[in-house]
Amino acid sequence: MSTVKTRGSLIVLSGFAGVGKGTVLKSLFETQEGYAYSVSATTRQPRPGEVDGVHYFFVSKERFEEMIRDDELLEHASYVGNYYGTPRAYVEQKLDEGFDVILEIEVQGALKIKEKVPEAVLIYMLPPSADILYERLKGRGTETDEVIGRRMKKAAQEAESVEQYDYMVVNDDADECAARLHALIRSQRQRIRSSLTFIRKLAKELANMSEKER
Amino acid sequence: MSTVKTRGSLIVLSGFAGVGKGTVLKSLFETQEGYAYSVSATTRQPRPGEVDGVHYFFVSKERFEEMIRDDELLEHASYVGNYYGTPRAYVEQKLDEGFDVILEIEVQGALKIKEKVPEAVLIYMLPPSADILYERLKGRGTETDEVIGRRMKKAAQEAESVEQYDYMVVNDDADECAARLHALIRSQRQRIRSSLTFIRKLAKELANMSEKER
Repeated sequence: MSTVKTRGSLIVLSGFAGVGKGTVLKSLFETQEGYAYSVSATTRQPRPGEVDGVHYFFVSKERFEEMIRDDELLEHASYVGNYYGTPRAYVEQKLDEGFDVILEIEVQGALKIKEKVPEAVLIYMLPPSADILYERLKGRGTETDEVIGRRMKKAAQEAESVEQYDYMVVNDDADECAARLHALIRSQRQRIRSSLTFIRKLAKELANMSEKER
Repeated sequence: MSTVKTRGSLIVLSGFAGVGKGTVLKSLFETQEGYAYSVSATTRQPRPGEVDGVHYFFVSKERFEEMIRDDELLEHASYVGNYYGTPRAYVEQKLDEGFDVILEIEVQGALKIKEKVPEAVLIYMLPPSADILYERLKGRGTETDEVIGRRMKKAAQEAESVEQYDYMVVNDDADECAARLHALIRSQRQRIRSSLTFIRKLAKELANMSEKER
């Protein structure tokens, strides 16, 4: 829609382990323009090949705690002794540049984001069936039966939270799922609350022209 | 999404006179499947060629007033001595059959529908600019300057109600607008509240499989 310049949407994507989020997002980023990943801040050490500002913003524990205090994070959590969080400024900058920003995160973080950013769009990726999820976890060939059992159990628990999301996408085929995800994300730009600048400008133009007609 | 069978969405479409709703809907119905028009009930006489149950449900004044009393209408209004209204049963039937039902109606009726059917999706069609709306009204060649002036004034007033809608589509080009409208309407099927049957079935499957794993 070349005539309408709008801010991007903050898209929060969650899904069961094994549902195929990574493959779908790869397809989305390869086939479509205008997307940006949210970059997390963390206190953990960079691994070989990881680039600051690309894979993570690597910060000290002191700096991270300052970010918490100053409300610079949309959400944060700690995991095996390290902090992880979503810096608000980076997300805001990308949204202002017109990017749709994808934030891949688990349920608790997603719901925290929705509290801080009510216009965030929460999308849950689901498998077509429980059998298919099981087959996909099994098919990876890297996990023990015990781990697969635990993941299925976690999925069963998490399924109850899905109803708190805004939308779901079913991953039957990665490319088709990416196409539907893209259509869904693009349609968010047509939400009235994303378009208020355009609507108010048009209303003013109409009012001015009606005045002249009189 | 062949694996997921969902109910259609009730789409309420409004737009300024001259914005091109008719042309866009023609393109939508010609290029896409799965759509149905809502058929209105009216007490006015059929015109030559109009078919009962296709163009309108033609009913008596007594029957129409009974429909009002029995809450069989999603909205109704009277216009030059005749009643017009939207029978709920027809809309519900088409939605159950999986159709996305399009209801083209003005602002007051649209807001009444939203009250009765909160899951209805209100879409407003806008011109790219006030100038373009003016040119389109002028270009029809059938309207006097006075009528055009009145329509522009009405558009200016109506623009204030647009913010009560859910989405807008800009009609820059009828076919492109129809394609965006289609993507927007289809994406409604991915709303969580449209998908609860699927989600709950999946949750149950996952729970059953987790039990077996134990």
